[in-house]
Amino acid sequence: MQHYFINENLTNNQRVTLPLEIGHHLSKVLRAEVGDKVQLVSATHLVYLAEIGSIDGRQVTATIQKELHMDVELPVEVTIVSGLSKKNKPELIVQKATELGADHIIFLPMARSIVKWDQKSEKKLKRLNEVALSAAEQSHRNLVPTVSYLHSLYELTKRPFDVKLVAYEEAAKDGEESNLAQALKDIRPDTSIVAVFGPEGGISSEEISLLTDQAYISAGLGPRILRTETAPMYFLSSVSVMTELLKS
Amino acid sequence: MQHYFINENLTNNQRVTLPLEIGHHLSKVLRAEVGDKVQLVSATHLVYLAEIGSIDGRQVTATIQKELHMDVELPVEVTIVSGLSKKNKPELIVQKATELGADHIIFLPMARSIVKWDQKSEKKLKRLNEVALSAAEQSHRNLVPTVSYLHSLYELTKRPFDVKLVAYEEAAKDGEESNLAQALKDIRPDTSIVAVFGPEGGISSEEISLLTDQAYISAGLGPRILRTETAPMYFLSSVSVMTELLKS
Repeated sequence: MQHYFINENLTNNQRVTLPLEIGHHLSKVLRAEVGDKVQLVSATHLVYLAEIGSIDGRQVTATIQKELHMDVELPVEVTIVSGLSKKNKPELIVQKATELGADHIIFLPMARSIVKWDQKSEKKLKRLNEVALSAAEQSHRNLVPTVSYLHSLYELTKRPFDVKLVAYEEAAKDGEESNLAQALKDIRPDTSIVAVFGPEGGISSEEISLLTDQAYISAGLGPRILRTETAPMYFLSSVSVMTELLKS
Repeated sequence: MQHYFINENLTNNQRVTLPLEIGHHLSKVLRAEVGDKVQLVSATHLVYLAEIGSIDGRQVTATIQKELHMDVELPVEVTIVSGLSKKNKPELIVQKATELGADHIIFLPMARSIVKWDQKSEKKLKRLNEVALSAAEQSHRNLVPTVSYLHSLYELTKRPFDVKLVAYEEAAKDGEESNLAQALKDIRPDTSIVAVFGPEGGISSEEISLLTDQAYISAGLGPRILRTETAPMYFLSSVSVMTELLKS
């Protein structure tokens, strides 16, 4: 069933006029008909079953039938921080991190980043937020992750998180694999976790020092060398295993 | 350091003439010089440090210096089976599954596969084996995963594996999330595991029956709906968490 985010509160029996992009998608792309069902997610992250009541071009209305009591969010609040990387890697990171349950995705320039975003960051973020919305619809999330840009790693260190990690390839080479498991083992629901991932060239030792001075824990992600876009996928999967699979 | 697979046995002090593609990559792409170090992986999956001794066009020789005692392989033997999917998804699956430690990757047509490979399978496999080689070099694996094609799911069921899983979206919807954790929890080293993943449209109930009749266990991969190429990434990460991170 199609799954859309509606930025307003919803209640049973309410008749909603869907935003035009959603109306267009339903009527023109999917050729939906009156009586078809959709899932609508409210501003408060609740999922409702709704039935299409009228279609007039891109003007589509739907009536809320009932709350579906679906919650697919990770029990913890995860922020992924990614050093700027080349080509379509940021898109892939946002798409996969959204599917795998991230709440926030932050891009920032790092010492070994080859690309720069400064002037382009607004345009890049617009595109990446569209990717996040589309992936959140597809994976039936209760919320759309935020995608944002910071000018430096230093700026990041001013932000508070309960658990702070940095993925460090050298830690993996040294056989350090248990810090991640330790950090996730007894984590409580609603804890905020941040994990920092370097760009293609990896993270510099100065950056590691800056982070570890601010109580970031350096953690390996298994013994294999993962690309910059693969490391957050491994990390988010490990959060799911530790907080969802092993707790159920 | 560059990491190459040499399909022969290697010993200390041996002088090796590198295969021409590797010689080309070193001399033309990387502009390597005599005295540079590389990692060479033998046919028996051992990793050696070697020093470049001569460069003559694409003819490059290197002398084996010592074994590096690196083993980054998962403690279990993992086979990923993927229903044929569209566009560049098979490439992405092979690249990421290689980085994340798969030993074998099998593609096969499933009920809801939109694409067919029959005539094209040889060409597709050639390309996908190149992707596996390149990803195995990049992630410093001890072996290159095999990529192969089967004509049907039925053919797969004739093959023996110690632990057999099928990722089933409906299992995830029902809140079934612990079968995967259960299956991986007390797994012994060298166990062979196979996991089957449907194409974009998912796996049909007939296919689930065929597999469960052959003792495949239906397992959810957390509560979020994952795309066909994302599910194997989640699965392989979970194998690493359960067999590497939580055991170290």
